Amino acid sequence: MSKTIERRTFIKSGVAASIALSTAPAILQGKDDRKVKLGIIGIGGRGTGMLKTTMRLPNVSVTAVCDTFPRNLKAAQDLVEKTQGERPDGYGDHELSYLDLLERDDLDGVVICTPWELHIPMTIAAMKAGKYAATEVGPASSVDECWELVNTYEETRVPCMLLENYCYFRYNMAVLNMIRQGLFGELIHCTCGYGHDLRERIVLGKGTGPTAKGEGDYRSTHNEHRNGELYPTHGFGPIAQCLNIQRGNRIQHLTSTASKSRGLSQWSKDNLDSSHKRRNIRWNQGDIVTTTLKCFNGETVVMTFDTRLPRPMSFMYQVQGTAGMWMQDGDSSSKEKSVIYLDGKSPKHQWEPFGPFQEKYEHPLWKSYLHEAETAGHGGTDFLELREFVACIRNQSLPPIDAYDAAAWMAIAPLSEASISTGSAPIAFPDFTDGAWMTNKPIFGLT
Amino acid sequence: MSKTIERRTFIKSGVAASIALSTAPAILQGKDDRKVKLGIIGIGGRGTGMLKTTMRLPNVSVTAVCDTFPRNLKAAQDLVEKTQGERPDGYGDHELSYLDLLERDDLDGVVICTPWELHIPMTIAAMKAGKYAATEVGPASSVDECWELVNTYEETRVPCMLLENYCYFRYNMAVLNMIRQGLFGELIHCTCGYGHDLRERIVLGKGTGPTAKGEGDYRSTHNEHRNGELYPTHGFGPIAQCLNIQRGNRIQHLTSTASKSRGLSQWSKDNLDSSHKRRNIRWNQGDIVTTTLKCFNGETVVMTFDTRLPRPMSFMYQVQGTAGMWMQDGDSSSKEKSVIYLDGKSPKHQWEPFGPFQEKYEHPLWKSYLHEAETAGHGGTDFLELREFVACIRNQSLPPIDAYDAAAWMAIAPLSEASISTGSAPIAFPDFTDGAWMTNKPIFGLT
Repeated sequence: MSKTIERRTFIKSGVAASIALSTAPAILQGKDDRKVKLGIIGIGGRGTGMLKTTMRLPNVSVTAVCDTFPRNLKAAQDLVEKTQGERPDGYGDHELSYLDLLERDDLDGVVICTPWELHIPMTIAAMKAGKYAATEVGPASSVDECWELVNTYEETRVPCMLLENYCYFRYNMAVLNMIRQGLFGELIHCTCGYGHDLRERIVLGKGTGPTAKGEGDYRSTHNEHRNGELYPTHGFGPIAQCLNIQRGNRIQHLTSTASKSRGLSQWSKDNLDSSHKRRNIRWNQGDIVTTTLKCFNGETVVMTFDTRLPRPMSFMYQVQGTAGMWMQDGDSSSKEKSVIYLDGKSPKHQWEPFGPFQEKYEHPLWKSYLHEAETAGHGGTDFLELREFVACIRNQSLPPIDAYDAAAWMAIAPLSEASISTGSAPIAFPDFTDGAWMTNKPIFGLT
Repeated sequence: MSKTIERRTFIKSGVAASIALSTAPAILQGKDDRKVKLGIIGIGGRGTGMLKTTMRLPNVSVTAVCDTFPRNLKAAQDLVEKTQGERPDGYGDHELSYLDLLERDDLDGVVICTPWELHIPMTIAAMKAGKYAATEVGPASSVDECWELVNTYEETRVPCMLLENYCYFRYNMAVLNMIRQGLFGELIHCTCGYGHDLRERIVLGKGTGPTAKGEGDYRSTHNEHRNGELYPTHGFGPIAQCLNIQRGNRIQHLTSTASKSRGLSQWSKDNLDSSHKRRNIRWNQGDIVTTTLKCFNGETVVMTFDTRLPRPMSFMYQVQGTAGMWMQDGDSSSKEKSVIYLDGKSPKHQWEPFGPFQEKYEHPLWKSYLHEAETAGHGGTDFLELREFVACIRNQSLPPIDAYDAAAWMAIAPLSEASISTGSAPIAFPDFTDGAWMTNKPIFGLT
């Protein structure tokens, strides 16, 4: 019991202290062997992957797991027991079981991998319970919810982290490194997006994990009812780092335009029997949503949300400045498909392959963790983000992607819906920092 | 003199007749050896190229040329005399000399290659003078001017043609052919743009032709004072053909967002002496302008105007439908850089090179004129468009890119300025057809 109290004190005082004081990292204090105890909420396809990666981290133990689907819960408990040797406590009897998990005294933090609409409410609940929270990505349901996230952080001072793994892509971090070294000059324009043919998964509500949850998952529900940029953070996160959003810069306004909705119903007609109960859903979500953001520092960003038409995968990253340009050449599958042009350095009017630049400007984080990252999932990005989350807990420090980042990036979804629903009207972007963006400094990839 | 009267009667009655009647092409009537007499207005860099291509066409003679720069005028007269054996009359004593040229009784048509802001006024003057007019591309100065173009056509019934050569690109015509054969399913989204590093030319006002006109040409003037999508038709023309704009479809509204303006002043600082008089121009034009259009039939189009930053050339074409997607992979220099994905036909999640598709679905126009086109300028597109213009005169038929197309495509410029100047507000698109778009049929590439 004394140990538990000690731990709670560690979290609460540590977190509060980290605002004002710089605490030497535990690893420098020789305390790195102290186990960080985590709970995982939501263990479907994505949650299972994150659970596996979490257990690869040194001196981390998963003490509690939560899922309202008994099969998911049991599979997770079995997996943890097999890997760690000890069976974690399970939660999931009812929709609010995660609150019981959050009440535990022995947890340092939680990782939230639930459906989109639960990310922000659960993160808020975790902060209120004094637990470091890391949440998976997705759209906010409302701008108000984003404010609640920020306000809860400011009241509790318990940090939370958005698990935007795309910020940790090796090429994105190398590009960020190059930007910070001035190789692109002054940044002017960026593009990003999420191009991924998810027609079957959306229509059938199929997940990818061990779950047999069946039809009608969160993607389906949101595509059926909403119409906006519903998956903004994979695209925008890395670009926000490039443009120092809320850290010297800020989004001024956005406009959003949705195409008609045809892809999902066409796929259903082509692939489902006429009696299939999911064949005639009326999908509100337009197939392609284009969102254009203007920043206070004058840059523009174009985002594309494209998961309802046939296409090879692409994240559509492009970074353009007064001295050069980098872009993914349509296909995001490899660094070979990524090209760069540096004014006065590249052969005139000719792209160069990005590969050698990625090696030359490799981000220090990737240099340090190359082996561990490469042997983990999602190109190493999951390992790197979870490692940083656990390091924040251990070091009682603030996360590199915080409540303000989460609020702004996830707010793009309801703001784009507001623009689309008013004929692409420009929507002013809320200042979740209440003015602090003018003096805040960039932190991602700098610690 | 009787010959001249006959010719004027030919044009006027022929043009009027073509509205209601289908006249058998002259070529089928054995009259194809009749010379079509043309005047060329504006003979700088682009005009010289068009003059050369015009003289490659069979049974075409250039009778009159006009340029207010004596060196340009003399060079053009010399060139025509050397090529055709007869020296054309020259016009250019004053800014309105082109009106004197238009008064000639012996001209069937004129080709207008003057600075941007003169295209529409000169086309209007040509229609009023009863001459078939073909005008080079550029932005309209105002929406009102576009209406005047359409109204003049409706009053005079003298056809005019927009010389949008990008509509004739071999790959664009093959893609159009594929769209019409249903290979992409129902079209949903397109992109296009004009990515061309013109910093030196814009800042110094340098042309590319034989002219020594010097500093401050039209690009410079427009970039110094305006801020919008100032070069819309190369990008939008081919996409308008894909989407049947004003021929069963129509643009509903657009939004436009401009980045800050840095590229031109940075280039000037890096490349001009501190005493150079063009070093400190205050450029209004943002470096990157993004314009998003929504169509009545539900499609979206994203256009990018990008000529003030370092970059390899790209036209950024992309066509996406329920059954597949075609895109230029960043670099517009060759068909090898263009890729395609057809649902259920291409290897899953993998792009295929577009080359074999371009051959398989080669447009009939390219099949017919491959040799002539390939040996002419701009990848054959100038030859094809001028050939069609001359064929229209000869056959007394309507041009494939008409006054309504010119008005709508060129109007994107002032409409985008209106959006940018009101914080990216959506701007309703005028209906230049006064309702006829609902029943008009596509004509480009179908005659």
